Amino acid sequence: MTRTVYVNGTYLPEHEATVSIFDRGFLFADGVYEVTSVLDGKLIDFAGHAKRLQRSLDELEMANPTTEDELLAIHRELVRANTITEGLIYLQITRGAADRDFAYPEGVTPTIVLFTQAKTGLADNPMAKVGMKVISIEDQRWGRRDIKTVQLLYPSMGKMAAKAAGAHDAWMVEDGVVTEGTSNNAYIVKGNTIITRQLGHEILSGITRAAVLRMAREAQMKVDERPFTIDEAKAADEAFVTSASTFVMPVVEIDGVAIGTGAPGAVATRLREIYLDEMRKAAI
Amino acid sequence: MTRTVYVNGTYLPEHEATVSIFDRGFLFADGVYEVTSVLDGKLIDFAGHAKRLQRSLDELEMANPTTEDELLAIHRELVRANTITEGLIYLQITRGAADRDFAYPEGVTPTIVLFTQAKTGLADNPMAKVGMKVISIEDQRWGRRDIKTVQLLYPSMGKMAAKAAGAHDAWMVEDGVVTEGTSNNAYIVKGNTIITRQLGHEILSGITRAAVLRMAREAQMKVDERPFTIDEAKAADEAFVTSASTFVMPVVEIDGVAIGTGAPGAVATRLREIYLDEMRKAAI
Repeated sequence: MTRTVYVNGTYLPEHEATVSIFDRGFLFADGVYEVTSVLDGKLIDFAGHAKRLQRSLDELEMANPTTEDELLAIHRELVRANTITEGLIYLQITRGAADRDFAYPEGVTPTIVLFTQAKTGLADNPMAKVGMKVISIEDQRWGRRDIKTVQLLYPSMGKMAAKAAGAHDAWMVEDGVVTEGTSNNAYIVKGNTIITRQLGHEILSGITRAAVLRMAREAQMKVDERPFTIDEAKAADEAFVTSASTFVMPVVEIDGVAIGTGAPGAVATRLREIYLDEMRKAAI
Repeated sequence: MTRTVYVNGTYLPEHEATVSIFDRGFLFADGVYEVTSVLDGKLIDFAGHAKRLQRSLDELEMANPTTEDELLAIHRELVRANTITEGLIYLQITRGAADRDFAYPEGVTPTIVLFTQAKTGLADNPMAKVGMKVISIEDQRWGRRDIKTVQLLYPSMGKMAAKAAGAHDAWMVEDGVVTEGTSNNAYIVKGNTIITRQLGHEILSGITRAAVLRMAREAQMKVDERPFTIDEAKAADEAFVTSASTFVMPVVEIDGVAIGTGAPGAVATRLREIYLDEMRKAAI
């Protein structure tokens, strides 16, 4: 089936969906993005993604070509046109197309692109039953990881390094402590405390992270937002990641070392249940 | 005038030149580039750029869709079609278009794009007579700056910070020492010694840098490839940058501090003459 995608105000077949070779997203990675999950044909935490999108744009002094209402309408139309029951909606905004110059161009209209990815087993993901294996790699990304830009080459390289090592993902380590996964936030559990790195320029302020930490606190779980080392992670009772597409996903092995019992932990499993349950109810 | 550009085997008008929204150059900054200067309608150091392009591709395990001979023919055809006497040729290769996934796709054809930028005053640049002003900023780029990727958002931000401060460019400082400019290599001169940071993952291995250092040594100038601090730079006799588009360009002010006499220095001015003279002769 040919997907219907959205490019600068027009819905069109995916094979006709293009941007100029002069688009700054293509030439300078001068663009930001969001990925929103769809469950039961509805959007998960759309408001959270719209808010972070605006923050990314603001940090880069980039104009937003849409309102939140327009963005919601586009998301819904893509869900409808592509009959997405379960999947992802990808959104990217770039500074627009202009002759190549490092300095930002003036008077340029931003580029906006959205497309869907149908997925089965997002909620009922078999991986959640067995857990993920991760490796650790040095965090070599730029310094403003709190801005969700398309500068994703290093995370891609990390994913390939993980694959080559027979693992599913990589956790990045900087100055001796874990920052995050290649496309998710990282957590450990030790003695009933959930530990995850505090927000800052070093990591993305995960939309799923915010919801999961709120739900954990509401469920009377102890949360400690602080840096942790990879050795601390290997000695933890549990480990897991969160992201818009994996929700809460247990990690059962780090660099070949089994975490806890080597099976998905009780905290991660419970948080996944709570998250999916609450977010399905709140989906729009 | 409408430029003729090159996209994946086809020469076409610039306004028709597009890439898929699924191109990994657009979605992941998964692409590399080169910029080659044209003087007198001929290519400056084409072989150097072709060699570095291949290295960038190799480092990212990306296929090269062309041979060096084909690449040369495309460069020459674009110079001819756009009647470029003086200017730049921009070349970008990305991993190609595939449905979005951090892992590299298999069996995908790389995307190749080239376009020209006519420029007047590249060789006879009025800036070379008065010198550039730079500011210093923290180097927040990723760790593999030796690979010439399109992850150029931070250099763009640096250029904007320089503009806002009434300067022409920014020098980036990491761990107390200067790495390079936003799109050029950085040098100081102290007591007749040319000092520039040694090669490594921290800086781009400039094609112009290699040629200029060779010419400096041939002219019996002393060259010391080592890190230098921004304070050392401010106390230097001279400062300058090199790049494919600025050749050798004097720097006369750093963070508001005049360098040497505050005018272009003798070493930078001489190296610019030698470089332009030799490269014009060797141009193809």
